[in-house]
Amino acid sequence: MAVVLGPNRYGKAETRLVRVVRDGGVHHVKDVSVSSALSGAMEDAHLAGDNAAVLPTDTQRNTVYALARKHGVDQIEDFALLLARHYVDSQPTVHHARVEIEECLWGRIRDGEESRPPGERHSFVLSGPERRTCVVHHDRDGSTTVTSGLRDLAVLNSTGSEFFGFARDEYTTLAPTHDRVLAAAVRARWRHVSGDCDFGASYSEVRRCLLEAFAGTHSLSLQHTLYAMGRRVLETRREICEVRLAMRNKHHFLVDLTPFGLDNPNEVFYAADRPYGLIEGVVLDDDAPAARFAWE
Amino acid sequence: MAVVLGPNRYGKAETRLVRVVRDGGVHHVKDVSVSSALSGAMEDAHLAGDNAAVLPTDTQRNTVYALARKHGVDQIEDFALLLARHYVDSQPTVHHARVEIEECLWGRIRDGEESRPPGERHSFVLSGPERRTCVVHHDRDGSTTVTSGLRDLAVLNSTGSEFFGFARDEYTTLAPTHDRVLAAAVRARWRHVSGDCDFGASYSEVRRCLLEAFAGTHSLSLQHTLYAMGRRVLETRREICEVRLAMRNKHHFLVDLTPFGLDNPNEVFYAADRPYGLIEGVVLDDDAPAARFAWE
Amino acid sequence: MAVVLGPNRYGKAETRLVRVVRDGGVHHVKDVSVSSALSGAMEDAHLAGDNAAVLPTDTQRNTVYALARKHGVDQIEDFALLLARHYVDSQPTVHHARVEIEECLWGRIRDGEESRPPGERHSFVLSGPERRTCVVHHDRDGSTTVTSGLRDLAVLNSTGSEFFGFARDEYTTLAPTHDRVLAAAVRARWRHVSGDCDFGASYSEVRRCLLEAFAGTHSLSLQHTLYAMGRRVLETRREICEVRLAMRNKHHFLVDLTPFGLDNPNEVFYAADRPYGLIEGVVLDDDAPAARFAWE
Amino acid sequence: MAVVLGPNRYGKAETRLVRVVRDGGVHHVKDVSVSSALSGAMEDAHLAGDNAAVLPTDTQRNTVYALARKHGVDQIEDFALLLARHYVDSQPTVHHARVEIEECLWGRIRDGEESRPPGERHSFVLSGPERRTCVVHHDRDGSTTVTSGLRDLAVLNSTGSEFFGFARDEYTTLAPTHDRVLAAAVRARWRHVSGDCDFGASYSEVRRCLLEAFAGTHSLSLQHTLYAMGRRVLETRREICEVRLAMRNKHHFLVDLTPFGLDNPNEVFYAADRPYGLIEGVVLDDDAPAARFAWE
Repeated sequence: MAVVLGPNRYGKAETRLVRVVRDGGVHHVKDVSVSSALSGAMEDAHLAGDNAAVLPTDTQRNTVYALARKHGVDQIEDFALLLARHYVDSQPTVHHARVEIEECLWGRIRDGEESRPPGERHSFVLSGPERRTCVVHHDRDGSTTVTSGLRDLAVLNSTGSEFFGFARDEYTTLAPTHDRVLAAAVRARWRHVSGDCDFGASYSEVRRCLLEAFAGTHSLSLQHTLYAMGRRVLETRREICEVRLAMRNKHHFLVDLTPFGLDNPNEVFYAADRPYGLIEGVVLDDDAPAARFAWE
Repeated sequence: MAVVLGPNRYGKAETRLVRVVRDGGVHHVKDVSVSSALSGAMEDAHLAGDNAAVLPTDTQRNTVYALARKHGVDQIEDFALLLARHYVDSQPTVHHARVEIEECLWGRIRDGEESRPPGERHSFVLSGPERRTCVVHHDRDGSTTVTSGLRDLAVLNSTGSEFFGFARDEYTTLAPTHDRVLAAAVRARWRHVSGDCDFGASYSEVRRCLLEAFAGTHSLSLQHTLYAMGRRVLETRREICEVRLAMRNKHHFLVDLTPFGLDNPNEVFYAADRPYGLIEGVVLDDDAPAARFAWE
Repeated sequence: MAVVLGPNRYGKAETRLVRVVRDGGVHHVKDVSVSSALSGAMEDAHLAGDNAAVLPTDTQRNTVYALARKHGVDQIEDFALLLARHYVDSQPTVHHARVEIEECLWGRIRDGEESRPPGERHSFVLSGPERRTCVVHHDRDGSTTVTSGLRDLAVLNSTGSEFFGFARDEYTTLAPTHDRVLAAAVRARWRHVSGDCDFGASYSEVRRCLLEAFAGTHSLSLQHTLYAMGRRVLETRREICEVRLAMRNKHHFLVDLTPFGLDNPNEVFYAADRPYGLIEGVVLDDDAPAARFAWE
Repeated sequence: MAVVLGPNRYGKAETRLVRVVRDGGVHHVKDVSVSSALSGAMEDAHLAGDNAAVLPTDTQRNTVYALARKHGVDQIEDFALLLARHYVDSQPTVHHARVEIEECLWGRIRDGEESRPPGERHSFVLSGPERRTCVVHHDRDGSTTVTSGLRDLAVLNSTGSEFFGFARDEYTTLAPTHDRVLAAAVRARWRHVSGDCDFGASYSEVRRCLLEAFAGTHSLSLQHTLYAMGRRVLETRREICEVRLAMRNKHHFLVDLTPFGLDNPNEVFYAADRPYGLIEGVVLDDDAPAARFAWE
């Protein structure tokens, strides 16, 4: 036996960057959290404590801010690509860069700006628990992958959901149902065919597909709905070749009110925290290019 | 010295209730978390373990569900009043009831419902980290208080905010500024003159006042903005007699890019988590009735 | 009606300070989070944006670090007293200071230090979710109050707990029990008779009293246990005049295994998150001095 | 292009199970959170909503409780193996089962049990934020993998840590240091050579190795320390063939006190939340058997 170093990476996680763009009196805000992770020939660092190949995570934080000033931050995928290429191109010891960005979404406060002169708009309100996300990989061999996504999108159908005909064993007590509440917290990620894309438009359309398919599918299971969501994206958006979904089934149990002489015609529910169903699946184009490190 | 029992209360916290109302194919969803706390003659329970005066917290949970079925859940303040009065009226040993409710806010998914027959709408998306809240007290002496509120409302002005002329001492290093980002997480609570109110309309209007005042005030400090927000509510809404605000100043520090040969004209900011400024204040009508236990 | 400013305060919350003391090769670590809040004549700040009376929260953060260097940080209550007095004594506009400190508790890593020369000890491991806390108030009138406490202390008795003889109404379904699991997350705060105390020894002894009373009491309800815990402190520690406890009842429900042909003799439990029982109570010495602002 | 279903799994996450064992008056408590995920021929479920191959997640929750009663819960790895094999063996449509368990660690309350008869011990206190973890995979082809781990272990060395000689670029401002605080939150997972092991003893010894190596290594970087920790495990414990570590560098920045006329000889630190360094690495035996799905 010999002890060896396997895959490894290091970086600065969750660098919080807010950038304000002033278009006259009309401001725009971009609020992101950037995590970079670099890989390369790191044996000396790990085994001998020789840091010659280590670009400090402190430098990585500085780089986020400096490149934001130099190049701006528009779509998060483009900024992630810029950063990933910067590290591989500028650092001989960096063989691979992974950049992950999460964006908080701010909307404008419409009220209260009426008293201002026309053309002044600089007030914002955070618009959701939802986050827009992306992960970019860039390798010294020239390969680049881009996945986009969202997390903490909570959706609910108050009818149009069934669950019956499932497998039963000695531990099964669940009754089949033909009308239930279907609620889920959605984590979705989708892989782009290439790194050349109008990422802003793509994001809006993919999100719309996901919501449309969730709302428009008469559900026979959360798996059934998950697949419909992924398929909708792939059939609608040619720039996407693979969708990965993780849906947390937020169970809504009908409360038994018979001890109190009351019926409960699908009206009063107990929303449980734990345990929860967790349904994960990949939907992809069978012609999709190899994913390589895209999902790491 | 003698050891005695002081103020006390007991109850069930965070009972999660979702109620679906079906108006034909158009559904409505109400998603709330209910906490009740009861007080009364509890010496025997505490000192001797005699539970004759204890209404189990399990019963309090059941009551939430049963009353939701019997009476529905419209505005959270009305449902809290119903519950609080129920406990005091039905339990001789309960002298005082406090009911707190937090509401998650769901909006409709517009997309994806187009394929359905007209009049079918039952798909929803959670619309924010923001929660609508209320606290109701009802006492055996007949007194009732109602406060409404919101929490986790995050707002940001990208300009129109100054901070100068402040006190300085030997530990002061902060430079005065005439243009900064002002961002805050707002916790607001407001007291109603009476328990008889159109709480839904009141909530919408108070929220609008808070946003308007935040957006429309040229700020000289977060205290200055806080007061403007409270004053706006009181001057606009006669059903409100007191506003309590806690604003968590989410500092946005301008990043020093000079080591990289770059200027930073109020463009690139580091958003810090901790520490944060915390500004708390009460704004009230000097004719306001006594608050009694409203804020407990 | 006239809109007026009510009670208010402002400060820096959660300033994270770690102090290392080197006693030769033996190091000591103090890890605290300090929140200060100042009050005074703040009408001009709120109404007119005149900040002459505002000591910036940035300065308050600096003060924490500077005083930690000048005077050290031993018991958190003593450091909070130092800070509170500093603000009132040095700032004519500050009439009242409230300082809250939370301490993370680190223990030594015993293993792995054996290979070092004798007298070298500088490795630590965080020892719990539990936090030690205090709140100090100091007023310009000379009054000072000190409360100490702890939070997130989770305790469990696997037997020795009953709950029966409780009030019943039409919504009661709970069965009486003579043997249940009693588990709680404890938030305890206790008021000192004076600000002159060996706070370290006092903390250890109060914590011991709380644990002893929890473990040693045959419980007839959580209220019963709560009172026993508070009483134990007061009867044992003369420096304490009042104890406030909030106990979150972490319900452990016996799982019904009869559908699977199995009994369940108090062995297999489902630990629920929400809802939870919340029992709050004050136990005090009837000779206790007035609390004034101690609990604000 | 054709849309196809890729890898997928479904299950019940975070089933909370507490089991009490009564050895006369001496009780033992096991507190775990169990997540199972099953895979198999799921095309019909996803594409057509045919649930014949779906074992409801509700059944999976029931199974956790029933098997806990039937077979007990000793080491979490053994219980995970039991569950994983149960699903594959009893369900023809299940081709692969993944079971993850997290354990909360309770210690005994020593104080307060003295007043009891000898042999009565049933009072516990939660002993840390730390969790013990495991992930077991069992496949229809007979393969089984077991990884064990821990998370939220926070460690700190107040000296004995350097960082110098690192790569520099135009965005580097960090100064080299020869004495710094090194603090990290550790997530460690290790792979067992086989599923036949005294997992309890193994866990204790691996944890000891990790702490010893952290405490006993004069650190030249967090990578250097990480590797030393992994190597120590592999060199000491022959039942382990691979260690994966993710260490979150909890930066402690020396506060600049010179504006206040004070020096700061490595005494007063600001503990930052975000951003943080994140160092991830694999250390393995070069003879290790193939990992297959162990880390999925």
